[in-house]
This record gives sequence, structure tokens and C-alpha cells, in this order.
Amino acid sequence: MIIVDRIREMQVLMHQCRREGKTIGFVPTMGYLHEGHAALIDRAREENDMVVVSIFVNPLQFGPNEDFARYPRDFARDRHIAEQRGVDVLFHPEAGEMYPGPLTVQAVVKARTDVLCGRSRPGHFDGVATVLIKLFHIVMPDRAYFGMKDAQQVAVVDGLIRDFNFPIELVPVPTVREDDGLAKSSRNVYLSPQERKEAPALYQALQAAAAAVEDGERSADAIRHLVKEHIEAHTHAEIDYVEVCSYPDLTPLETLHGTVLVAVAVRFASARLIDNVILRLPKAPRQEE
Amino acid sequence: MIIVDRIREMQVLMHQCRREGKTIGFVPTMGYLHEGHAALIDRAREENDMVVVSIFVNPLQFGPNEDFARYPRDFARDRHIAEQRGVDVLFHPEAGEMYPGPLTVQAVVKARTDVLCGRSRPGHFDGVATVLIKLFHIVMPDRAYFGMKDAQQVAVVDGLIRDFNFPIELVPVPTVREDDGLAKSSRNVYLSPQERKEAPALYQALQAAAAAVEDGERSADAIRHLVKEHIEAHTHAEIDYVEVCSYPDLTPLETLHGTVLVAVAVRFASARLIDNVILRLPKAPRQEE
Repeated sequence: MIIVDRIREMQVLMHQCRREGKTIGFVPTMGYLHEGHAALIDRAREENDMVVVSIFVNPLQFGPNEDFARYPRDFARDRHIAEQRGVDVLFHPEAGEMYPGPLTVQAVVKARTDVLCGRSRPGHFDGVATVLIKLFHIVMPDRAYFGMKDAQQVAVVDGLIRDFNFPIELVPVPTVREDDGLAKSSRNVYLSPQERKEAPALYQALQAAAAAVEDGERSADAIRHLVKEHIEAHTHAEIDYVEVCSYPDLTPLETLHGTVLVAVAVRFASARLIDNVILRLPKAPRQEE
Repeated sequence: MIIVDRIREMQVLMHQCRREGKTIGFVPTMGYLHEGHAALIDRAREENDMVVVSIFVNPLQFGPNEDFARYPRDFARDRHIAEQRGVDVLFHPEAGEMYPGPLTVQAVVKARTDVLCGRSRPGHFDGVATVLIKLFHIVMPDRAYFGMKDAQQVAVVDGLIRDFNFPIELVPVPTVREDDGLAKSSRNVYLSPQERKEAPALYQALQAAAAAVEDGERSADAIRHLVKEHIEAHTHAEIDYVEVCSYPDLTPLETLHGTVLVAVAVRFASARLIDNVILRLPKAPRQEE
């Protein structure tokens, strides 16, 4: 595995790979790799000649009151995991390499951000989009892999790739789950034994919503109510939001149609958990394309 | 010459060229080609295997009170000029191909815009940067060619390419001039015979400034004064601005050092003209890099 910390070196290396006709799969991460990342890497490994993983805790996507400094970092461990998974190139730049001075230009995400987690994180997705533009230009992959656990991020990246005509295929990868259905997350370790027992109720609630839709339910209100009730009945968590919206546009829905995202965020005592399901329904009869 | 109006077709064609190891030179234009554009095309022709010219009047960079609808268009003529100059590919998309719906993400230029022409055109360079990101991803050139006549645009593109790590070399091309020094512009035809006689005074004033700096003058005030006086003495034009700033950062200077832009804009009765010179001086002793 090649480890690169310079942008220029990375661009020369990737240019060489492309000249040799190799396809490149890219998994951008903030490090502290877990099984969710491993699933992205495995998928990229299956579909490309070269797999590139970036590890960069991007200061631009953290708000002033967020945990940039405390964000967990363990490069030795990440490096080991990446090597074991068959990653070809690990790109691990310093902040000063990525942001040598004030930016003269930045990406601003104008849609898909005032819902779900974006509502409470103003500017977060501007920072995500900006660093991804940079990383995409540094790696120039054929395919980029993102986990559906953060469905809103995938929707924003979908817009970024589409609207800016990036010649990159976005590959959303299904959420990796524990045996009891709990979505894998670095934050799960913060859960108390009791909370850990309760936490699978999020996915159970989402599955119940999927079953109700399967049985013909089309009211977003009814779905939200069903999810809330299940979580309230089975956990002590405080519900942050339960939202039902179109995907990838993320416009709130009253009546379910087309591709629908049902997403939930809850707060346990020391961890905030998110989860979601995507449901595929027929398009509304007179919906504009 | 191949004419393409679809993004996807363009991306496939350019991908094929790159696979064949060809270098690509790109000249983005809004059409109505003149000798300034021809100089860009000729330079691209010298330095690359393939020359791509885009013709797209970008609605995003026009303000609500600006002349998007009236902007001159003559595709038949442009096509003829491009063919004669040896252009390989002419990319000529409709607005609906470039902007099929509202953008979810946009570029915002945060520096280099509140001076010179940017001061009176809020949002203009956001539109320029956004369309260039799209065009760069569609063409994926090795080199992109821009005329130094619009020095501020070149400075903004320099920031865009650098900050977003585009693997593209920016090639600024010197302003093409008439025999008497007047910078070539589509707008010169609007000048009355008397104004046309006076107009070379802009470049004469800039040359006088360059000579004064050569002779040791380092005061931006003195340079501005000298340029204004020359223009006022030799034309009936109203001076819009005379600015002296660092290049490409475009920060106003008091004392000249490093790479300096002296830029001027004036209004004749029916045409606004701009011109500039770049002066290369030693860096200030304790200037931060």
C-alpha cells in the first residue's frame, strides 16, 4: 500500500494509473475506520483496478461548536485496516496541505440541506462539498463510494456530481448492521448496556414503516407517527427527528410516492444515533419529472 | 471540426482523446469570436494535440439588469472562424443542457471580486466560476486559455484552479492590440470616429505608468494620478476606475512591490472600455509569502 501526503504527488500517481488504463475507486473518509468504511472499501475493491482511500478530518465541515479537535484519530490503526482490506493508495494530507491559505472560492450547497441533520448544522454541507471537489480533483476516480447511513450526505454528493458534471459515478453502499439490526457506528461504543439493548428499535421502527407502506400506507403523517410510537415504546431515547421525504431531492412529502427516504435521529444519554430506509414506490401520476 | 451540443457526448469524446494520450487545450468563450479569441485559439493550437472551444452565453454570470438577452450571438460566423483557426471540437450546448433545473450547489467566489469590475457586478464571478467548473469537468483539458484583457477574470480562475486543485494549467494570454495600442474588443465598433482616435490613450497612460515604475516610482497614488491625468488630458471619456493592486490576489497597494496590476475602465458615450498592464517588481522585503 502506498501512503501519500502531498497533493501534487497524488495527482501524478493517479494520472499515471489512468494512463495505464486502470479504473479508480475512491473512498473518502475522516479516518477512524470501522466496518461501515470496510464495506465501502470492499465494494470499491470488487469494482475497480485501484482503490484509493483518503483520511482527512476536514475542518471546513465542522461548526464552531462542533468537535473538530476531539474528533477521534488513529492513523496507525487506520493504516493497518486499509492495508488488510487491500487498499492500494492511502491519501493522508495535513490540513495545511489541503488549505494552505484562505480559500478564494467555496462550494455552497443551496438545496437538500435544510432538512434532517442539515437543519442543525448550517454550513456543514458547504464544507463537505468543498473538500470533496478538492479530493475528487486530486484523485480523479471513476467511482466514489459513500455509505447510505448518512443518506443526506449521499443526496448532497449526488447533486454535486450531477450539477457540476463530475465524470464520476456515485456508488451508494447499503448501511452495515449488527446482527440485531443496529446500524454500525463509531458512536455505538458510547451506549450503556441498557441503551445498546434498546437501540435496535430504530431499525425495527423503520422496518415497521416499510411493512406498512408495503401494505398500502401512503400517508407520511401515519408513517412518522408509527416510527415515533415504536421508538417511544421501546427506548428511553429522545427523538430528534423522524422525517419522510423524497430522495434524493429531500423535499418533505405528505403522500408517499417515488423514491422515499424515512430517516430518524435520536439522542441517548451520551450518543446521537441516526438511521434510515429508502422505499421505492411508483411515481405520482402527475408528478413533474 | 466536430460540433457537439450534448454534455455526455462531449465527455465520451474527450475521454477517448485522453485514452489516446492526446493533450487537450480549452478555450471557453461566450461566442461572437474576435481576434482576442483567435489569439487564445492559436496559442492552444501551438501547445496541444486537440483544441476545444466552447461557445455558451452563460445566464448565471449576468445580473438582472445586464444584457443577457441582448448579448450578441452569431453561431454560423463563430463556427466559420473556429474551423479556419483549426479548432478540433466546438462545444455549443443549449442553456437547458447546461442548467436542466435549479442547481443544488454553486461556486461562490470569496476573494478578488470586490475590486475593479467585480465591484459593480455582484455575483458575476460566482456565475463565471460555476460554469467553468462545469465546463472543465465536461472537457477535462490539460490547459485552459484566458485573455489578460480581463485580468480580474484570470485572477479568479487562477484561484479557482488552485483552491479546487483542478489538474489544469491556466494559460493567461497577452491582450491583442490594434496597431495604435488599443486593446481589441467587440465593443470598439461602438466608438465614434473621434472616440476611436482618443481610445489609444488608455494604453498610452498604462505605458506611461510602466515607464514611471521602470524609473523608480513606487507610489500607487502617483501611478493612479499619472494614469488619470493622461486619460483626462487626451480623451473625453469618463473614468470609471484606475486601480493599482497586487496580482493575482487583487489587494489594493499603497507601495508597489511584487507582481502589480494597473487597471483602468472608462466610459465613452456608447462603450465602456477596459485595459491593464502587469508589472513585475521585486517582492517587498518583509512581505509574507
